Amino acid sequence: MPKLILVRHGQSEWNEKNLFTGWVDVSLSSVGEKEAARAGELLKESGLKPDILFTSKLTRAIQTANIALEKADRLFIPVVRSWRLNERHYGALQGKDKAATLAQYGAEQFQTWRRSYDVPPPPIEDSSEFSQFGDERYKDIDPNVLPKTESLALVIDRLLPYWQDTIAKELLEGKTVMIAAHGNSLRALVKYLDNISDKEIAGLNIPTGIPLVYELDENLKPTKPSYYLDPEAAAAGAAAVAAQGQKK
Amino acid sequence: MPKLILVRHGQSEWNEKNLFTGWVDVSLSSVGEKEAARAGELLKESGLKPDILFTSKLTRAIQTANIALEKADRLFIPVVRSWRLNERHYGALQGKDKAATLAQYGAEQFQTWRRSYDVPPPPIEDSSEFSQFGDERYKDIDPNVLPKTESLALVIDRLLPYWQDTIAKELLEGKTVMIAAHGNSLRALVKYLDNISDKEIAGLNIPTGIPLVYELDENLKPTKPSYYLDPEAAAAGAAAVAAQGQKK
Repeated sequence: MPKLILVRHGQSEWNEKNLFTGWVDVSLSSVGEKEAARAGELLKESGLKPDILFTSKLTRAIQTANIALEKADRLFIPVVRSWRLNERHYGALQGKDKAATLAQYGAEQFQTWRRSYDVPPPPIEDSSEFSQFGDERYKDIDPNVLPKTESLALVIDRLLPYWQDTIAKELLEGKTVMIAAHGNSLRALVKYLDNISDKEIAGLNIPTGIPLVYELDENLKPTKPSYYLDPEAAAAGAAAVAAQGQKK
Repeated sequence: MPKLILVRHGQSEWNEKNLFTGWVDVSLSSVGEKEAARAGELLKESGLKPDILFTSKLTRAIQTANIALEKADRLFIPVVRSWRLNERHYGALQGKDKAATLAQYGAEQFQTWRRSYDVPPPPIEDSSEFSQFGDERYKDIDPNVLPKTESLALVIDRLLPYWQDTIAKELLEGKTVMIAAHGNSLRALVKYLDNISDKEIAGLNIPTGIPLVYELDENLKPTKPSYYLDPEAAAAGAAAVAAQGQKK
């Protein structure tokens, strides 16, 4: 039966600095590299063997996958990258300090931008240093399709066609598929797979660097609840993510 | 115009131990990791920007590419892996000590196996611990197609169709293509691109970790001699490769 393994990238240089990142292409911090190595060890211990890897186009997710698969002795598997697995585009908030944004706009607006289902932040200007306008890695994509801000609802809209057309195809062949991606692109996928309501998804946090496993049937429906390869660390990690932004 | 960048993986754990490796899947040594990082720095300094990466199915080539592209800020490019870029299969010599093999068989036989154009070593037994029989990474390939030993001529036979059908296609679109592979699979390609005779190829050594660049015309013929991004280090490296096997 098909299996799906979701891995959220570990701490990045900007997570560490508490900045809104979105599509800005920052690297893993040394803590993030350790998290990725741990993800690989957990994979190896579990006996799960990814047959194919999907990643976003962002360095921190690719680094996480490279480190984890090296630890799991699975570097040889095919790799496919797509912008449709990218993190939520954070619009004009990209590059801004989370605590300063909270102070400037207040808790209600801040939480709306972070956790509302369908309210995106203001769009980023093309002239912003944190815009991806003209970024070479998206040169093959119609510029009108590329987001300048996104809500979680918009992430789902752009991710699901890729899931349906490309990732599902591999699962339907019975493969074990690994996706290395981001907090919000993975939340979008989990919402879809677990049929979570627009309201309840706000409270769902995915911890970094701990593989989340779905066992699926031939219709790609979960045959049992998804599970983390290290449940204790996952619970602690999810709580830490939930507390983010409250940091001073 | 299309550009081709060839990168031979850096020192592996078995290069370090002076063992015949072939298709045995060993990792880079720490020296090899540094060579890969240097390759990435050279790429970055050169301003060359690979649009797509091809690798073999072997960990040491994949590690080299991952490290180099990370240094060159190009992790996001598409990646394709194929067994057709693998190192020459060294047959029954796989896993054997080079110096001991030299002592056992004598210099003439040793040099024939290492450098003759079309004399492969004896085939490896499926039961050997160094055979790839049943190796999961080749499960999608007809077992009758997978080699049990190879000469350089046989490497060319299995590599060229992949070059013609898959790699050339990307170059014909004007892309900059990077290939991370092995001493003998890259010698096979260089022989073809530079039209080197069966005899002269014996004297050609490709140093590890130094990008070798081909600038090609619309017929994929070199427009000028290929060049290394660090010519001095390349000359020293090629001499070191030539001296290999003479080590005690």
